[in-house]
Amino acid sequence: MPLAKSWVTSANSATHPFPLNNLPYGVFSTDSLDPRCGVAIGDMILDCQRAEETDLISVTDDPLFDVPFWNEVMEEGPDLWSALRDRLTQILAEGSPDRERAEPLLVPQSQVEMHLPFLVSEYTDFYAGRNHAFNVGTMFRGPENALPPNWLHIPIGYNGRASSVVVSGTDIRRPWGQLKSPDHDLPAFLPCRRFDLELEMGAIVGQPSDGPITVDEADANIFGYVLLNDWSARDIQAWEYQPLGPFQAKATATSISPWIVTKHALEPFRCMTPEREFELLDHLKDTGPMLYDIDLRVTLAPEGQPATEIAHTNYNQLYYSAAQQLAHHTTSGCPMNPGDLLGSGTISGPTKPERGSLLELSWGGKEPLTLDTGETRSFLEDGDTLTLHGECHGDGYTIGFGSCTGTVLPALEDPYAR
Amino acid sequence: MPLAKSWVTSANSATHPFPLNNLPYGVFSTDSLDPRCGVAIGDMILDCQRAEETDLISVTDDPLFDVPFWNEVMEEGPDLWSALRDRLTQILAEGSPDRERAEPLLVPQSQVEMHLPFLVSEYTDFYAGRNHAFNVGTMFRGPENALPPNWLHIPIGYNGRASSVVVSGTDIRRPWGQLKSPDHDLPAFLPCRRFDLELEMGAIVGQPSDGPITVDEADANIFGYVLLNDWSARDIQAWEYQPLGPFQAKATATSISPWIVTKHALEPFRCMTPEREFELLDHLKDTGPMLYDIDLRVTLAPEGQPATEIAHTNYNQLYYSAAQQLAHHTTSGCPMNPGDLLGSGTISGPTKPERGSLLELSWGGKEPLTLDTGETRSFLEDGDTLTLHGECHGDGYTIGFGSCTGTVLPALEDPYAR
Repeated sequence: MPLAKSWVTSANSATHPFPLNNLPYGVFSTDSLDPRCGVAIGDMILDCQRAEETDLISVTDDPLFDVPFWNEVMEEGPDLWSALRDRLTQILAEGSPDRERAEPLLVPQSQVEMHLPFLVSEYTDFYAGRNHAFNVGTMFRGPENALPPNWLHIPIGYNGRASSVVVSGTDIRRPWGQLKSPDHDLPAFLPCRRFDLELEMGAIVGQPSDGPITVDEADANIFGYVLLNDWSARDIQAWEYQPLGPFQAKATATSISPWIVTKHALEPFRCMTPEREFELLDHLKDTGPMLYDIDLRVTLAPEGQPATEIAHTNYNQLYYSAAQQLAHHTTSGCPMNPGDLLGSGTISGPTKPERGSLLELSWGGKEPLTLDTGETRSFLEDGDTLTLHGECHGDGYTIGFGSCTGTVLPALEDPYAR
Repeated sequence: MPLAKSWVTSANSATHPFPLNNLPYGVFSTDSLDPRCGVAIGDMILDCQRAEETDLISVTDDPLFDVPFWNEVMEEGPDLWSALRDRLTQILAEGSPDRERAEPLLVPQSQVEMHLPFLVSEYTDFYAGRNHAFNVGTMFRGPENALPPNWLHIPIGYNGRASSVVVSGTDIRRPWGQLKSPDHDLPAFLPCRRFDLELEMGAIVGQPSDGPITVDEADANIFGYVLLNDWSARDIQAWEYQPLGPFQAKATATSISPWIVTKHALEPFRCMTPEREFELLDHLKDTGPMLYDIDLRVTLAPEGQPATEIAHTNYNQLYYSAAQQLAHHTTSGCPMNPGDLLGSGTISGPTKPERGSLLELSWGGKEPLTLDTGETRSFLEDGDTLTLHGECHGDGYTIGFGSCTGTVLPALEDPYAR
């Protein structure tokens, strides 16, 4: 599929993240417009609320865009998802007869504030990157016992905290927590000293289910994808996580990129999961290409300094697809809802520069990373700005995710001062 | 505090669960009434929606009872909670001038269906019962290493799945899941063979917080309590829980009792947490009596058979109060919201008949329990009805929680048949 051209000419570039082929969904506001749904096209956003009010978009009987989140669109289901995308493509395509009505509804991206694109119903974080699981396991248990016995049979995951999901651009306050240094007998309540990022993608469940669903049904229920940074307090995690898993270590914040890239836009970039060491059980078996070829990069900019690229990998490094994760999520009968967010797990490639966390990049702090500025990092410092980037490279066009960024603020001096 | 008398005379008994001293909050419907908020008094329910529509209850400018859940009341905060309770007490007290207006708004409990009393925002399950943690730890690691090193310093918890919370009376379908028998090399996808209950209480967060809060602030933010059965698939859990904790093993269902017993009603039953083996860190320290003296019982009835009491313990057996759990939950900055539900963790007393799970009662299946019917149980069988009961014994009155019940249905023959 080549670049599809739009009358919004900024979209007609081989490297622009938001060509007509993409049409990602977000929620924006300006000084004069309340938060509302919009679609990115080139450097502009089409105001979906006004487009619906003026009947430029009219694909359902009841309004879809009278609320500032995309959950109502999700709830309508795949037929509506296709109809809406078709209509948006028609409106924004080069030569469209709708141009005159649509042009006044465009807002420059430079003038907007972005918000969470959907109400996060519940948030689950998986652990489906084999290199990440192997690296972390090697650090804690040695390379022979790196992968837990279940890992090659089941997409390991845990429930996270939906209330802590924030949109890209939100500052992240370094947390306090209960820690125990190896050289102390007792724990203490201190600011986190090993604050980290996790490079992930988030899959957004768009349709409900109430009982076990197959991998193909799960794939059909996914609405789209975002970049996701699961901020992690490694020292809090080390002390708390046995026996019931991570809790406060992962509850400070999880940042997501503001634009939902739809499954439809990603279709040309589907690719296979890796060879299986053990055959998966029937209900988790691959049914076709269900990963995507998405180029992923992480940059770190110390306060007032230029950014260094610290990781470069690809979504195709995952062992389990989001569809397999969602299918597993329903095996016990767990009801799923539109707006459920599934983190992929940290994505690391096989070599050092492909590692998606500082824990792995600095090997637990033993091999600090040197930035382009000459500074070193084992874990995040106050003032650091972390940014995730994601792009699919098509034939003469790009499907971009925008970026997912956040700046680390110093811990509160006294978290209980009022 | 003695029994407070009501003109609803069924409430004026020393053993009735719902005297005027209690006034628990639920959501009910009848053949002719849509689901709506109500308050239990004796054998009746006061219809709050109609009471508000007729200005019998008028404690806020905006309506509280135009929705079938108690979250809007929670959001109003503690002053409204007190004002509402005062007004309800006034309306329902013996000799009340409001009797004539209120009497037509009473609905017999025998005629209603109960619904979830609130929208569950997020669900967290703790592990704060020392005897339970010791018993489970002893089975898996021996008595010397039974409690994990963090256990006496931190209320261990994990995020559960809010979508799986159901109201008492909902049937519970035995789940399928990935299991691995100790005598097999590879896992299989099978119906759960070790399906269990967990006797817990749930604390309902009534006020939002956005940063660390103290134990006293946490206590003030709690709206009320319910009985909670965290149905658990022990064989799924054993295979999946390392390294990130329980996931599908706990996602089939969590049942709660339909009546929220308010913190106010429980006030006379406050009691101290146990002696501390290690001094707690300042932010978790006990600030007064924060547990409650609540008598708890579990009965099991095989299909078509009478029930046997299989466990009898007390909420005062917990090591950490709900306020301490909530305070810990916020340490990392995790935002909390009205409607968040905190499971206490399984409550077991020190002796065998006080154990709150079949895992403990049958010691991992090695010592099957004999029921009054002569049947034995290691874990739950299809058709078993499990019921939790909770009561506080006051001076001439009872504060009851009603019951929390559920019947185990057989696993689906083929979970993917459509």
